[in-house]
Amino acid sequence: MMPTAFVIKIGGNIVDDDKKLDAFLQSFATLHSNHLLVLVHGGGKLATKLAERMGITQQMVEGRRITDAETLKIVTMVYAGYINKNIVARLQASGCNAIGLSGADGNAILAHKRIVSGNTDYGFAGDVDTVNTPLLANLLEQHIAVVLAPITHDKKGQLLNTNADTIAQETAKALSRVYDVTLVYSFEKSGVLLDANDNTTVIPTINPASYQQLKDEQKIFAGMIPKLDNAFSALNNGVKKVVIGNAEVLKQLLNGEAGTTIINE
Amino acid sequence: MMPTAFVIKIGGNIVDDDKKLDAFLQSFATLHSNHLLVLVHGGGKLATKLAERMGITQQMVEGRRITDAETLKIVTMVYAGYINKNIVARLQASGCNAIGLSGADGNAILAHKRIVSGNTDYGFAGDVDTVNTPLLANLLEQHIAVVLAPITHDKKGQLLNTNADTIAQETAKALSRVYDVTLVYSFEKSGVLLDANDNTTVIPTINPASYQQLKDEQKIFAGMIPKLDNAFSALNNGVKKVVIGNAEVLKQLLNGEAGTTIINE
Repeated sequence: MMPTAFVIKIGGNIVDDDKKLDAFLQSFATLHSNHLLVLVHGGGKLATKLAERMGITQQMVEGRRITDAETLKIVTMVYAGYINKNIVARLQASGCNAIGLSGADGNAILAHKRIVSGNTDYGFAGDVDTVNTPLLANLLEQHIAVVLAPITHDKKGQLLNTNADTIAQETAKALSRVYDVTLVYSFEKSGVLLDANDNTTVIPTINPASYQQLKDEQKIFAGMIPKLDNAFSALNNGVKKVVIGNAEVLKQLLNGEAGTTIINE
Repeated sequence: MMPTAFVIKIGGNIVDDDKKLDAFLQSFATLHSNHLLVLVHGGGKLATKLAERMGITQQMVEGRRITDAETLKIVTMVYAGYINKNIVARLQASGCNAIGLSGADGNAILAHKRIVSGNTDYGFAGDVDTVNTPLLANLLEQHIAVVLAPITHDKKGQLLNTNADTIAQETAKALSRVYDVTLVYSFEKSGVLLDANDNTTVIPTINPASYQQLKDEQKIFAGMIPKLDNAFSALNNGVKKVVIGNAEVLKQLLNGEAGTTIINE
């Protein structure tokens, strides 16, 4: 049997809330004593605020940010610098040895600049090619938690802004070669909900059959569908389990006592 | 005999000059194929420029920057984020596997907030306590070059702005427990000069006796004395050799064919 590892993504709302982030990192540090852990963090609102303060206008197309050269500079500073290093420093303070990496570090995550499709050029946005499993496994086996910032590189000297959900998914898939991996998407909601406004309507388990039924009956909030499609894609690529739930109950998410567990059977 | 390792500091002027930085990183990448290398980078003018753009006034006392909370945020973003990750991405492009770390990452460099002396409070400035030799040696032995940003932490959750010269020196001293270490300070000058304005007046070798003589005869530029005192302190703590010279001839500095070599005999 392979050892178990957890890849945990925290959403921007947690990163933006100092108190919630601290509580989350406390739980993470406690779990670190007997689990192999990878943390993937998003960016939160700090990058947008910094851009505003610097007078840089953020271009958006269909709700997605265009990463021009100035924006890439900002997200590199904020995600790989400020947020990543502060998370690592706080984990160290809680007795959890952690290392913060961008995709360039140790060639952790290789990506390519997103191909221009139609009229939309997303700029310096990266689509993931490979995750460096030996590098991450070596650190995890030294009992060092890995904290990944959503910045990758193309091995041609270009840093790339990359979706944190995708990084979590690709990392979970890559680590499945050597571990039994659970992928956790933790955010401010309690899980996949039957009623998007009611945190008590969590669906405890979803498998392919029940997912189809939920979609047929239009019981799933549209915004959740890409997340679930990604979850099943991860399961089809070696990940054992995907859990979606509230970052404030991390331990229960890992135990399967809270959130929505997505499995492939 | 212990293997040889090089700890190389690059000055701010090189970091600020894209062309010089690229040439330096090319040489560094070439040397990486058969050397164990640590690179320590300073900050350059980018942090000051960003602070100006954000309307943050930099406080200086006796030529030294005071690191208030806002300044710490900026140097964390610029040093540990922008500069560090861009250096690593460029090294990766040149075929040199590198990993960028702040002192918080893997608890690489533990420091404490500088004690207030007299009326001067340097704010979030860090004085180094310990460098994590096993962590760095493990990476070096995986043939990964380590790129250190001048940001440390106190293991209580606080990041600290730390002098890059000091980080280079302390890292060289710590690695001397397992390697024969040469510490290289590379910058825009050709070495320790008899005439500060004439790059052809490089003193090839300095030992304690010749240093005393140079000081007695007031032949050394005052600004160089703290650097030389630090060099001898490093030699007294296990470092084999200190080289000071021009970043544009890195290979020759490592071979002892350029710059000033400082030895303890």
